[in-house]
Amino acid sequence: MAGKKVLIVYAHQEPKSFNGSLLKIAVEELTKQGCSVTVSDLYAMQFEPRATRNDIVGHLHNSEAFNYGVEIWEAYKRGGLSKDLVEEQKKVQEADLLIFQFPLFWFNMPAILKGWMDRVLVQGFAYDLSKACDCGLLQDKLSLFSFTTGGSKEKYAIRGDIRYLLWPMQHGIMHFCGVKVLEPHICYAPEHASEEKRKEMLTAWTQRLKTLWKEKPIDCSPEWYFK
Amino acid sequence: MAGKKVLIVYAHQEPKSFNGSLLKIAVEELTKQGCSVTVSDLYAMQFEPRATRNDIVGHLHNSEAFNYGVEIWEAYKRGGLSKDLVEEQKKVQEADLLIFQFPLFWFNMPAILKGWMDRVLVQGFAYDLSKACDCGLLQDKLSLFSFTTGGSKEKYAIRGDIRYLLWPMQHGIMHFCGVKVLEPHICYAPEHASEEKRKEMLTAWTQRLKTLWKEKPIDCSPEWYFK
Repeated sequence: MAGKKVLIVYAHQEPKSFNGSLLKIAVEELTKQGCSVTVSDLYAMQFEPRATRNDIVGHLHNSEAFNYGVEIWEAYKRGGLSKDLVEEQKKVQEADLLIFQFPLFWFNMPAILKGWMDRVLVQGFAYDLSKACDCGLLQDKLSLFSFTTGGSKEKYAIRGDIRYLLWPMQHGIMHFCGVKVLEPHICYAPEHASEEKRKEMLTAWTQRLKTLWKEKPIDCSPEWYFK
Repeated sequence: MAGKKVLIVYAHQEPKSFNGSLLKIAVEELTKQGCSVTVSDLYAMQFEPRATRNDIVGHLHNSEAFNYGVEIWEAYKRGGLSKDLVEEQKKVQEADLLIFQFPLFWFNMPAILKGWMDRVLVQGFAYDLSKACDCGLLQDKLSLFSFTTGGSKEKYAIRGDIRYLLWPMQHGIMHFCGVKVLEPHICYAPEHASEEKRKEMLTAWTQRLKTLWKEKPIDCSPEWYFK
């Protein structure tokens, strides 16, 4: 899909990791398709995950009692967000597809990526009063959560369905902002897999990317997650 | 319950916030009961949420390719964790009850608190090979997630049950480490509530704390979350 813009938000410390290989494949394959690919390499950028007063340039709306949600919204409206947030929002705004590439930490994304969600997807930019879900401000965009796990597929199946843990990320964040959600891409336990199995997983990712633009988003309702 | 030790991990930037009031109440009420209460005030401590090489003192197990999970486990075993992690682990080790007090950000905890989970609850300390869930290393401890929301109870009910988003936190983290989980304490939309309603919510928290030690943990199975 020549001309499409993709933002990959990547949260791994090590380029030689399996996540690093998945990132490399995505950049190469999507570039080959003619897409314009941007990567936010959060650890390399030393991205700040903490939501603090530093995110607001200049005066506070109410300096008596700091309310991050109110302050960041007001700052957004008057163009007073810190430079790193403005840059990330510009990347999101331009993207047709957001790919999140990370290792699962505690049934969830690593804190550095959660901080990206907390600080970048602010009110006024990603959603607004009564502008959420199907009316969210980031419509006409797609998202895809691509992650690796520590445990095997069987281990996750014992403790309920892996889809359970996707609810807060996919529905609670992306769907809330109006972003459509593609099927997640999960590589189970690459660290414990044979070299052959690892290669198979990398090939499967390449193959999926080849027809990604033909995929239909999932129905992001409770039924998808909990049957 | 005189003599019990409580660790409150608190993630709000502003002492005058509703979360700040909930923290104050917990410290006062539990101290009055004769408990010894410790607070980890994450923003005030400027707690680092990013899982990086800085968490390991001295040499790496494999400096060719950085693997956080492996490195932090090896560092734990040889006593080579960074000072801030050692201090937090000591507080956890001593505690009978862990209370997490925070505003819900994106159907989840704020990144600074997620970073506490990522960095403090490491392999060897909180769980180990085949020592997870009922065999987790932090048994005989209780936990309680106490949080505020932006939206009303009704809004959360439209988008499925609020329990759905508790699965990764309560089950995926605490239950995995063997920590028992008490009913969550949820204050819905205090920012939009009347002064009277806010007072009622604060009183309800005080009341709950009075009989907290008599509570039975929840059954942390998929059924509790998804019926």
